[in-house]
Amino acid sequence: MCVLFNNSIDSNMKIITILGAGLSATSLINYLLEHSEKHNWKVKVGDMSVEVAQRKIGNHKNAEAFYFDVNDTSLRKKVIQDADVVVSMLPASLHYYIAEDCVSHKTPLFTASYVSKEIKALDQAAKDAGILLANELGLDPGIDHMSAMKVIDEIRNEGGVMEGFYSSTGGLVVPECDTNPWHYKFTWNPRNVVLAGQGVAMYIERGIYKYIPYQQLFERTQPTTILNYGNFEIYPNRDSLKYRGIYGLESIPTMFRGTIRRPGYSKAWNILVQLGCTDDTYIMENTKNMTMRQFTNSFLFFDPDMSVEEKIVKYFNLDPKGEIMKKLEFIGLFSDEKIGLENVSPAKVLQNILEKKWALEEDDRDMIVMQHRFVYTLNGEKKRKQSSLVVEGKENETSMAITVGVPLAITVKLFLTGKLNVTGVHVPTTPEFYTPILQELENYGVKFIEEEY
Amino acid sequence: MCVLFNNSIDSNMKIITILGAGLSATSLINYLLEHSEKHNWKVKVGDMSVEVAQRKIGNHKNAEAFYFDVNDTSLRKKVIQDADVVVSMLPASLHYYIAEDCVSHKTPLFTASYVSKEIKALDQAAKDAGILLANELGLDPGIDHMSAMKVIDEIRNEGGVMEGFYSSTGGLVVPECDTNPWHYKFTWNPRNVVLAGQGVAMYIERGIYKYIPYQQLFERTQPTTILNYGNFEIYPNRDSLKYRGIYGLESIPTMFRGTIRRPGYSKAWNILVQLGCTDDTYIMENTKNMTMRQFTNSFLFFDPDMSVEEKIVKYFNLDPKGEIMKKLEFIGLFSDEKIGLENVSPAKVLQNILEKKWALEEDDRDMIVMQHRFVYTLNGEKKRKQSSLVVEGKENETSMAITVGVPLAITVKLFLTGKLNVTGVHVPTTPEFYTPILQELENYGVKFIEEEY
Repeated sequence: MCVLFNNSIDSNMKIITILGAGLSATSLINYLLEHSEKHNWKVKVGDMSVEVAQRKIGNHKNAEAFYFDVNDTSLRKKVIQDADVVVSMLPASLHYYIAEDCVSHKTPLFTASYVSKEIKALDQAAKDAGILLANELGLDPGIDHMSAMKVIDEIRNEGGVMEGFYSSTGGLVVPECDTNPWHYKFTWNPRNVVLAGQGVAMYIERGIYKYIPYQQLFERTQPTTILNYGNFEIYPNRDSLKYRGIYGLESIPTMFRGTIRRPGYSKAWNILVQLGCTDDTYIMENTKNMTMRQFTNSFLFFDPDMSVEEKIVKYFNLDPKGEIMKKLEFIGLFSDEKIGLENVSPAKVLQNILEKKWALEEDDRDMIVMQHRFVYTLNGEKKRKQSSLVVEGKENETSMAITVGVPLAITVKLFLTGKLNVTGVHVPTTPEFYTPILQELENYGVKFIEEEY
Repeated sequence: MCVLFNNSIDSNMKIITILGAGLSATSLINYLLEHSEKHNWKVKVGDMSVEVAQRKIGNHKNAEAFYFDVNDTSLRKKVIQDADVVVSMLPASLHYYIAEDCVSHKTPLFTASYVSKEIKALDQAAKDAGILLANELGLDPGIDHMSAMKVIDEIRNEGGVMEGFYSSTGGLVVPECDTNPWHYKFTWNPRNVVLAGQGVAMYIERGIYKYIPYQQLFERTQPTTILNYGNFEIYPNRDSLKYRGIYGLESIPTMFRGTIRRPGYSKAWNILVQLGCTDDTYIMENTKNMTMRQFTNSFLFFDPDMSVEEKIVKYFNLDPKGEIMKKLEFIGLFSDEKIGLENVSPAKVLQNILEKKWALEEDDRDMIVMQHRFVYTLNGEKKRKQSSLVVEGKENETSMAITVGVPLAITVKLFLTGKLNVTGVHVPTTPEFYTPILQELENYGVKFIEEEY
């Protein structure tokens, strides 16, 4: 099949071109196809693997799969020129090339990725070209912005003054699939989970800057409960300070963003951090024939009279029969299994074993949790509000794919039906984005519960 | 003064050109001038500051100071071409440019810096040019190699088999100047001391690889005593593994290198590491008007009802009146003094305050300590030997300058008197280097005491 010379398109049809057909493109494609009849859309899906793209679109008559390689410049330009709208699901680092071509060919672009400096710099060029470059339209970033700004704007419109904003998100599994002692499975990029938090976490709390180094991060959790889903814990994200600017809360005394896990995860993960198992900066020697037990021992003090378990218990002052040791045993930290990898960092060894132990099983369903807390004063009175979301994955559609793909798809629909009349680089922090998107998201099970707390 | 057209040089005189007249050049220059008469040497000292160079040479008739800027390519080439021998005391990162020109102009080069990959790659070119590029001729690297290899070669020549090698070095102050609770003052680059150990420490102990991450490094000290100077502690250096190759001990079961401090230093320094005060990877906001107390508080949990001291005591489970708190108080971690610096990292803030608190006073004298331990089997018997060194600084000459400059100067003399007939890139791990250098160093108070232990 060759899309470049495909003549079967009704000339009034709008062409929506999706670049990248990976996991999180599923819900996006489904939504757009479901609405394609009514709106007379052609949905073209391009991927390095035409087969993958084909599988995503099935036999839908308004769909077409094609081969796409972002590095093929002439193909890329042609595809972007032919489209009425481009949605890029490619890795964030590639978005700049797409965005540049979109500006050249006056084709609007939609992504779920953070606005990079380079994309930001295209703002005026996009305005001059009369096109929209809309970003951060997924879950986080995306739904987090929309749901937070909806409440923040309501508070400000009422005359309230924001004193504190706390916002956290987590990708977990639904309670009935929560079957391991970590209460965690990989529902997203494992490498990012292993390296999470490296660097420093920066936030501000009642006017006091807080800087939490990686070696303290997983000690500094806060408990919370979310709807009727029970207890969770939150550890701080890397840079909360920048959200003051993004949300127009430059002088707010408290601005905190975090990541949600089930209670106990962080205390056990902290042992892996303290041991040095999450270090990705150097290559270990002789890992091929090293066992996991030897791997663990290489981070501990030398004592030929103590077992690895005894050393870890002694060094970190753990309960030998406690929850932390159970978690460490579960992932095989003390097993005689061979690593079997060469020229790898400790982080890669850890990721390798976690990918086996934390894999989603066939029928497992994932779950997104998000919670915002707003502290503000209204007419001299201190007030609190919280807004909570839980989205459970479906049998054939993960909650991650839904929450990343559907808001993006809704935005494309808003644009193509003439309801989004802006140009330049945008993120969905204004009512013209968040009001209709949040409203329609409720039909897809993405519904925030707002309450005082 | 213009050296380039100076005609006052006796044509039989050998010209020794020293590049860089910084602190550690003092003893080097003194030695070479003291021996210049006898050997008919002209010693030229080049520096960005001719005044500094002039001060170092005084009115010595065989000496000359000149302006030198390593970035001035034609000046650099001319200076190297005119010299019989070049000694570079410039920062290690600049040595490659010097070495390249030395090869082009067939001028031998001597430095106290580690052999970089780039310098190593010049080995064949130096051999083809028939010149010596001798490196690692200072203290550490330098005297450490020589004194270790002397004993290792003795053991092997006797038929012994090396089982373990431990080697540690420290730059401290002499006991009578050891007047602060850290038992430490800056006798070397403060930035390197603040950032020491970042990354991972790698060594091997009885066949087991050990990887100690930065966040554990200062917990993993070993005690030692050195001669009649009392107690010390040792924390592991970054890469001990590479010394197996350098010393020809590829299959030795134990290879460890460390840094020596007085007992208690590491436990207190560890608090600064755990807080995140040594992080040089990000810029803090609003440091200009922040006090040191606020700086410290920014790394601790939020609790308006607790003092900064109470928080640190609670978080790290410290004795409020104990040695660690005394040390932290001494460096002003809880003071209301303003930082007064803008756009700086935590490490820079810490360095700034330590430069005041850990400064050498006018009459303070520094002290170098070094200790090697050798474990080996000889005729089926397990044996141990240790080799220890203490060098006290003199009134006008630091022990650091002596131990960096004198071995370098001795090597130059050996070369110019025809006793070092090698070409290519070298470090002083062979007897032709270490035997005469160690022997002459004893006249300068650099004398290792070897004993069984």
